[in-house]
Amino acid sequence: MIDSPVLALAKDLISRQSVTPEDAGCQEMMIERLKALGFTIETMVFEDTTNFWARRGTEAPLFAFAGHTDVVPAGPVDQWHTPPFRPTVIDGQLHGRGAADMKGSLAAMVIAVERFIEQNPNHKGSIAFLITSDEEGPFINGTTRVVDTLMARDETIDMCIVGEPSSTHFVGDVVKNGRRGSITGDLRVKGTQGHVAYPHLANNPVHNALPALAQLATTKWDDGNEFFPPTSFQIPNLAAGTGASNVIPGEFDVQFNFRFSTELTSDEIKSRVHSTLDAHGLDYDLKWTLSGHPFLTDTGDLLTAVVKAVADVNHKEPELLTTGGTSDGRFIAKMGAQVVELGPVNATIHKVNECVNISDLEKLTDMYEKTLENLLG
Amino acid sequence: MIDSPVLALAKDLISRQSVTPEDAGCQEMMIERLKALGFTIETMVFEDTTNFWARRGTEAPLFAFAGHTDVVPAGPVDQWHTPPFRPTVIDGQLHGRGAADMKGSLAAMVIAVERFIEQNPNHKGSIAFLITSDEEGPFINGTTRVVDTLMARDETIDMCIVGEPSSTHFVGDVVKNGRRGSITGDLRVKGTQGHVAYPHLANNPVHNALPALAQLATTKWDDGNEFFPPTSFQIPNLAAGTGASNVIPGEFDVQFNFRFSTELTSDEIKSRVHSTLDAHGLDYDLKWTLSGHPFLTDTGDLLTAVVKAVADVNHKEPELLTTGGTSDGRFIAKMGAQVVELGPVNATIHKVNECVNISDLEKLTDMYEKTLENLLG
Repeated sequence: MIDSPVLALAKDLISRQSVTPEDAGCQEMMIERLKALGFTIETMVFEDTTNFWARRGTEAPLFAFAGHTDVVPAGPVDQWHTPPFRPTVIDGQLHGRGAADMKGSLAAMVIAVERFIEQNPNHKGSIAFLITSDEEGPFINGTTRVVDTLMARDETIDMCIVGEPSSTHFVGDVVKNGRRGSITGDLRVKGTQGHVAYPHLANNPVHNALPALAQLATTKWDDGNEFFPPTSFQIPNLAAGTGASNVIPGEFDVQFNFRFSTELTSDEIKSRVHSTLDAHGLDYDLKWTLSGHPFLTDTGDLLTAVVKAVADVNHKEPELLTTGGTSDGRFIAKMGAQVVELGPVNATIHKVNECVNISDLEKLTDMYEKTLENLLG
Repeated sequence: MIDSPVLALAKDLISRQSVTPEDAGCQEMMIERLKALGFTIETMVFEDTTNFWARRGTEAPLFAFAGHTDVVPAGPVDQWHTPPFRPTVIDGQLHGRGAADMKGSLAAMVIAVERFIEQNPNHKGSIAFLITSDEEGPFINGTTRVVDTLMARDETIDMCIVGEPSSTHFVGDVVKNGRRGSITGDLRVKGTQGHVAYPHLANNPVHNALPALAQLATTKWDDGNEFFPPTSFQIPNLAAGTGASNVIPGEFDVQFNFRFSTELTSDEIKSRVHSTLDAHGLDYDLKWTLSGHPFLTDTGDLLTAVVKAVADVNHKEPELLTTGGTSDGRFIAKMGAQVVELGPVNATIHKVNECVNISDLEKLTDMYEKTLENLLG
């Protein structure tokens, strides 16, 4: 039996060992097919990262598919039932690193566009691809820099589907129409080191900080809203002490992370944290790292088109969720674009024996194609 | 000028590099002199530690001098003005590692006993020496094991002077007549590890523990008493986290230490800590390590004799304090003995350029001798 076009392309992509930030020729494979369809290609290499921007058409609206060719490492190879970079079909599932996250999606995008253009060679608006090889890594030289380049020349994506594996049980049961923001604080509370036998000569920063941290951990930051759960505060790391049981530490390091809804801004979070620390009279340094603002696409042509396309294929509308970690959607949303994420089931991503249901890949191709028809047909 | 006997012996002791647990022949030097005075000697070697027990007389009361021949390491030798193990006199100060802690005291004890026995060959009661080479180390095979050996054969010290450097500005300004207890708790609070993006699937042990720890840190454990400051609680070490900012930790390790007065027992402390942790519904393991019960010698023949001896030499009574770290006095006190600590000024102990005032060593010898006269003369 001959592989279907989407399965054949997914296999070709999986067989290339493109562990972040390596692309291993995946993008060249996509570019060749897009060139043949009349796309204009720009390869953008930033440091160790390879990206490309491909566009067909000059009119608005500009619709883009976004995704990444890089994959996370295979992990313990002896726990894989099949070689991670040798795509293998077992019982209707395509196995291999990147099958679900997200080489299957990339293949579906390319095949969907090929079919759509065959039927609509003079489509409305423009179609684009924004593809990076650094989504699983530090995401410094990937999508964010391509977006900066586009914004610098006033080229604006109006609507974007990110091919991240958004689904839970079957393809299209969930469409992600936003993501929480993420901001991390690295706090150092300062005290005075000393001997535990002479506590009056020392000043234990742990003791000083405990009430403030307890307050932060029990604060209700917001109530969330229709699309977002309440903002959450977590302490992933903290440490103090020399290791000796008779030394009062002089410093106390605490790292906390907020996943925040569209009900709050990062500035509001910073201000409320500083107020709490100051109210407890702490002597501290606090360094903030903003990983991404929250975004939400709760109305608009894109969401309408995607929901209709999924419902056409599945005979069931998708659930709209904003749960989960961050994605490159945050960088594209800051252009003012409508952004949703639609991709395969994410049950096996980043794990050994990653796989994707082949019939889900066919359905995903249909969903992408129907979305294009709904928007630009 | 010929060195005085106490200075000569102190120099001989300092010139031997007896870094814990090494004795380097110090005890043999003391033993030779005590044998000549009619002491019966028992050398007790436990693992890497050398100890000796010397006794003159069979009657009660049994008065003992206790001390250690081991010293802490020299530290950065290039910061010493004189070679640390070459005893050197500069401006009336004897310099060298162990000069104040506590080879000067050992020399003073031996000379005091020589003088006392010359004047009182048929003294009342008994005189003993309990000397170890592991006071600065793990104190597992030192004084505590000699005490166990004595207790096993019903040989009980009634009164003991420990030669630790108890003084602050001049010898005998402070006599330590007790020490706080010390107990350490190693707490592991258990939760469920997870991704910060999915806090409802995890259970952050840091968040759970913060209110309980804040309560422990602000608890008033007792008011202390005439001789002890209030019991203090300190967190010297704590840690949680994988290092990653997106992982909620599954465990939280906290170490705390109590320095406690005679108003509390270790069992009361344990019970109150467990009550607090349980009241906050924590899932935890807690391992306790008792370093020493508190002890206090607030009345009795020994204290009277020592205070009188110090006042005779200094024309000023000593201040009685229980401050500072633990000492081997705790092991001897558990025999039921009256225990006090009297030794040189501790300003330079465990530091580079450790030194002791030579005239203080002469006075200390007088104080020890007068104590013997007051008790057994």
